[in-house]
Amino acid sequence: MIDERILATRTSRMGASAIREILKVLGQPGMVSLAGGIPAPDSFPLKLISELSDIVLEKYGPKALQYDLTEGFIPLREALVSEMARKGVTATVNDIIISSGSQGALDAMGKILVTPGDVVAVEAPTYLGAIQAFNPYGPKYVRMDTDDDGLIPEALEKVLSEHAVKFVYLVPTFQNPTGRTIPRARREKIAEIAKARNVLIVEDDPYGTLRFKGEAIPPLKAFAPDHVVYMGSFSKVFSPGLRLGYTVAPPLVAKWMTLAKQGVDLHTCTFAQALAAEYLIGGHLLKQVEKIIAMYAPKLEAMLEAVEEHFPEDWKYSRPDGGMFVWAEGPKGVDTEKLYGQCVARKAAFVPGKFFYTNPEEGLATMRLNYTMASAEQIRWAIGVIAEVIKENR
Amino acid sequence: MIDERILATRTSRMGASAIREILKVLGQPGMVSLAGGIPAPDSFPLKLISELSDIVLEKYGPKALQYDLTEGFIPLREALVSEMARKGVTATVNDIIISSGSQGALDAMGKILVTPGDVVAVEAPTYLGAIQAFNPYGPKYVRMDTDDDGLIPEALEKVLSEHAVKFVYLVPTFQNPTGRTIPRARREKIAEIAKARNVLIVEDDPYGTLRFKGEAIPPLKAFAPDHVVYMGSFSKVFSPGLRLGYTVAPPLVAKWMTLAKQGVDLHTCTFAQALAAEYLIGGHLLKQVEKIIAMYAPKLEAMLEAVEEHFPEDWKYSRPDGGMFVWAEGPKGVDTEKLYGQCVARKAAFVPGKFFYTNPEEGLATMRLNYTMASAEQIRWAIGVIAEVIKENR
Repeated sequence: MIDERILATRTSRMGASAIREILKVLGQPGMVSLAGGIPAPDSFPLKLISELSDIVLEKYGPKALQYDLTEGFIPLREALVSEMARKGVTATVNDIIISSGSQGALDAMGKILVTPGDVVAVEAPTYLGAIQAFNPYGPKYVRMDTDDDGLIPEALEKVLSEHAVKFVYLVPTFQNPTGRTIPRARREKIAEIAKARNVLIVEDDPYGTLRFKGEAIPPLKAFAPDHVVYMGSFSKVFSPGLRLGYTVAPPLVAKWMTLAKQGVDLHTCTFAQALAAEYLIGGHLLKQVEKIIAMYAPKLEAMLEAVEEHFPEDWKYSRPDGGMFVWAEGPKGVDTEKLYGQCVARKAAFVPGKFFYTNPEEGLATMRLNYTMASAEQIRWAIGVIAEVIKENR
Repeated sequence: MIDERILATRTSRMGASAIREILKVLGQPGMVSLAGGIPAPDSFPLKLISELSDIVLEKYGPKALQYDLTEGFIPLREALVSEMARKGVTATVNDIIISSGSQGALDAMGKILVTPGDVVAVEAPTYLGAIQAFNPYGPKYVRMDTDDDGLIPEALEKVLSEHAVKFVYLVPTFQNPTGRTIPRARREKIAEIAKARNVLIVEDDPYGTLRFKGEAIPPLKAFAPDHVVYMGSFSKVFSPGLRLGYTVAPPLVAKWMTLAKQGVDLHTCTFAQALAAEYLIGGHLLKQVEKIIAMYAPKLEAMLEAVEEHFPEDWKYSRPDGGMFVWAEGPKGVDTEKLYGQCVARKAAFVPGKFFYTNPEEGLATMRLNYTMASAEQIRWAIGVIAEVIKENR
């Protein structure tokens, strides 16, 4: 029998995440889930994708189905040059690498940058998928303090002065899990620190385009182009199932990402890339984003109103201008994992926030609330249930 | 400036492959390339894919565009259960993991099985893409002797008795680069050795379905189901650009492949998986394979005839019953890399065989000849040129 002895030692860092285990109950009938992190399926442009498929096969012919460059399909990378300009970032086609989801780009970062024992600095709390991508490569994490405006520049400065940090991982806009956005002035400070300390920042930005109100803030990449690896995604603004992410990277990083990707998947699905290229070229992205916002913004409003109305006064919560998440934090002593069990028994689910921290003792009183999957009515009901359970446990 | 000091130590094993460098000349106008390893673009079923796109969007709706299981789209895995039965392998849906190309499965093997310094046994010569997938994880390679019938069982036995081998990597059918196929009796012996020695075999089978003549031989997986990880691909029988591979693995391996894949790309493109599912469900695979064979078989004939006619008598060459490659070997002293330069100057290209060996001193007199991309006429011409250059260098 082939048994566990065959496994590489790195698998000890690759166990199933506890969060997946506790979320298994979500498939139960009647469950209203504010626990997910996925786009509403009714936001997907099915008819448009059917049209784009025909355009792709007509325009690119066999090229849409053939092996292609590891770096990515050139018409898509050309279209992304304009898309990045819209976001305030100057890029050339050569700076842009297409990945199989942002996840593919995060995996590449771990592979090309992390020697076991290297230090990666992350926000507390941070995005779990990134941790899962990095873990097999053996990093140690240092956590950086955040507040309502996201990463605190002084916390970054402190961590960089105390540790030899290989890179800093950030989700600066509508962060997962908090929904928080780092304001412009703070971005400028973070960029200055990165330049002064010559440290690389990995800026993960899947949500930035999903802004419901307020003015867009340029990515960190715009403020420190040589020190930031920017990652965008089509998952939240087109289709997650197509698994399309893109990275705008300094040349050294772009070169090694490409070499890593040759070993991992050769290249990302050409047909999906061609669909995304035509999505951008045809001007569909911004129209589709308008539709998605019209769908999500009222749900966010409903959630914020319900939290305001029902949650106890000693709870704090984020008030994001976009993205997919609200973050709530109770007073010291609250254990949201305990609340989770009771809420799920009453068919309302959220994610206990502790799972988003690299230190196991942090975030016990926090929770992540997603508003994209449930209806406004369901959201109001579920928030009511969660609030009831909170009060019963005081 | 961010410089090379930021790179992980494993990047020292991830340099650009020399073969890519020498193949860069292939884009030159007028070059007839027998160097490639990609399907003929006129073999792609464009019209069918347009029809399947509509069926997929109609039948699966938003599910074809949403996040999906890491293991793969269930309708595709269900269809692959039948496809594996056709090949002679009993599998359940849970045994089957979809990957982003076979490359994705090879990367997963490296990640979950190879602790730096572990020994992987490979055929001499072997498939380069596998080496590229494994290298970042730090294996050492031991090479196993092959003959006209592929891996020699005694060579496997010898290597297993002398080394603590983590796994054996094989392409048993129409191997890349040699085109050789391991006969049934030899497969039975190899399976017995794997069971007796309790060693895992990774069986990479992208070409098996492309059989032009003779009777199909069941995969190694059929003879040692608990000791073989079988990998199939849609690249040579549908579309390589869709990046779809599949693995039939023992439960322990399937479990860890899934955990690894969560970090690498979450899952493979749902839309592409749904297209492949409908391709199988609609019975299109075998019809399409017939068309591909009708296209490739005469080209192989043309190549074999031309080699027979023009190559010197002291050259040997393989006579495959399918796949995409012919392997030729000159007498000791021949340096095909030197011939390569002279052939390319006359606009005929092949791949010097040395690049397919893990030991740098092997295979100097060998070459790989591909017949899928050029026309029969071009093949005859290019073989003539290569033969001329061979003779001029005697």
